[in-house]
Amino acid sequence: MIRVLVVHETRLVRSGLAALLQDEEEIDAIAACWTSAPGKAASFRPQVCVVDGDCAGSVQAAGYPGGPGCELLVLASACRPGTLRRAVAAKARGFVDKDAPPARLRHAINLVAKGQRYVDHTLTLDFLQAADMPLTARELSVLQLAAGGASVPEIARELHLSSGTVRNYMAAINRKTGARNRVDAIRISQGAGWV
Amino acid sequence: MIRVLVVHETRLVRSGLAALLQDEEEIDAIAACWTSAPGKAASFRPQVCVVDGDCAGSVQAAGYPGGPGCELLVLASACRPGTLRRAVAAKARGFVDKDAPPARLRHAINLVAKGQRYVDHTLTLDFLQAADMPLTARELSVLQLAAGGASVPEIARELHLSSGTVRNYMAAINRKTGARNRVDAIRISQGAGWV
Repeated sequence: MIRVLVVHETRLVRSGLAALLQDEEEIDAIAACWTSAPGKAASFRPQVCVVDGDCAGSVQAAGYPGGPGCELLVLASACRPGTLRRAVAAKARGFVDKDAPPARLRHAINLVAKGQRYVDHTLTLDFLQAADMPLTARELSVLQLAAGGASVPEIARELHLSSGTVRNYMAAINRKTGARNRVDAIRISQGAGWV
Repeated sequence: MIRVLVVHETRLVRSGLAALLQDEEEIDAIAACWTSAPGKAASFRPQVCVVDGDCAGSVQAAGYPGGPGCELLVLASACRPGTLRRAVAAKARGFVDKDAPPARLRHAINLVAKGQRYVDHTLTLDFLQAADMPLTARELSVLQLAAGGASVPEIARELHLSSGTVRNYMAAINRKTGARNRVDAIRISQGAGWV
């Protein structure tokens, strides 16, 4: 039996994913939210932790769960290279498309539990894009504050920059993401999972 | 047996929800994406259709699936009154919080299949807000175009308005949503499910 911990912020979704895996006789699956995951992992001792990689906020706040000896398998949406980038940085071993058939997720869990890697073929192109992240760390900070509704002077104050410098960063962000304006840059970057 | 069709745009999520319901001996559940839902509904003849109400784009494009005699049960996130508003307009009978325990979803399906209503108690406050939609249809059109990255002149051209009028609409939108600026208004309105 492979012990699997499913982590997702929405209860019906994580319960559903666990029910889907439990169908298989080889898998014992339980579910947890991001907050309760570390506690559950400590007692359940999962061999594989399946997480929704698109919960960027939760990942940033809590990090990826699962202790030593637990392999990370990330569920990712296609066309969101930012998600893959975070997952790679967290040393994930498995990458499964959220739109994959359930059998593929089970197959990936089996491989990852044995210490092997699994990358869904439908995510290959996104991996190429993930390697080619267009924005610098500084530009990302500016964009993240802008996405939260901060004005240029507010961003400048927060990052100890001049308003002119923030405007230069915003112009660079627009150019690099191919955006028409600030709203468009936020939309494109959120869609790609960069912020 | 109650025949249930689960509709969600993500395959692993809809398969998981169907697996969760299938556990119960009283429910026969199958899953479909928004595109294939009408076809599956025609052959499976579901008594209850369970849909993710937050897929605003899919709902707008395809409408809610399920034919005559099929009751609509909408899964909704808390704090998204816009989702509830769309669901009410589509004559949904059941409203279940996505963060509810699975047993509550099954209970709601049982009631809705009998033609009764079910409203999750955790969504009560959101219903009050849903009744009090702050934006007019025209303001929503402006906001939707802005959220897509359109500039003021572009929005003006699209809606056959002057740029000054569009700016007036944007100012009214900011005031009504309590936003600091355009980006903030989009963020707040998307969070509430209005756009």
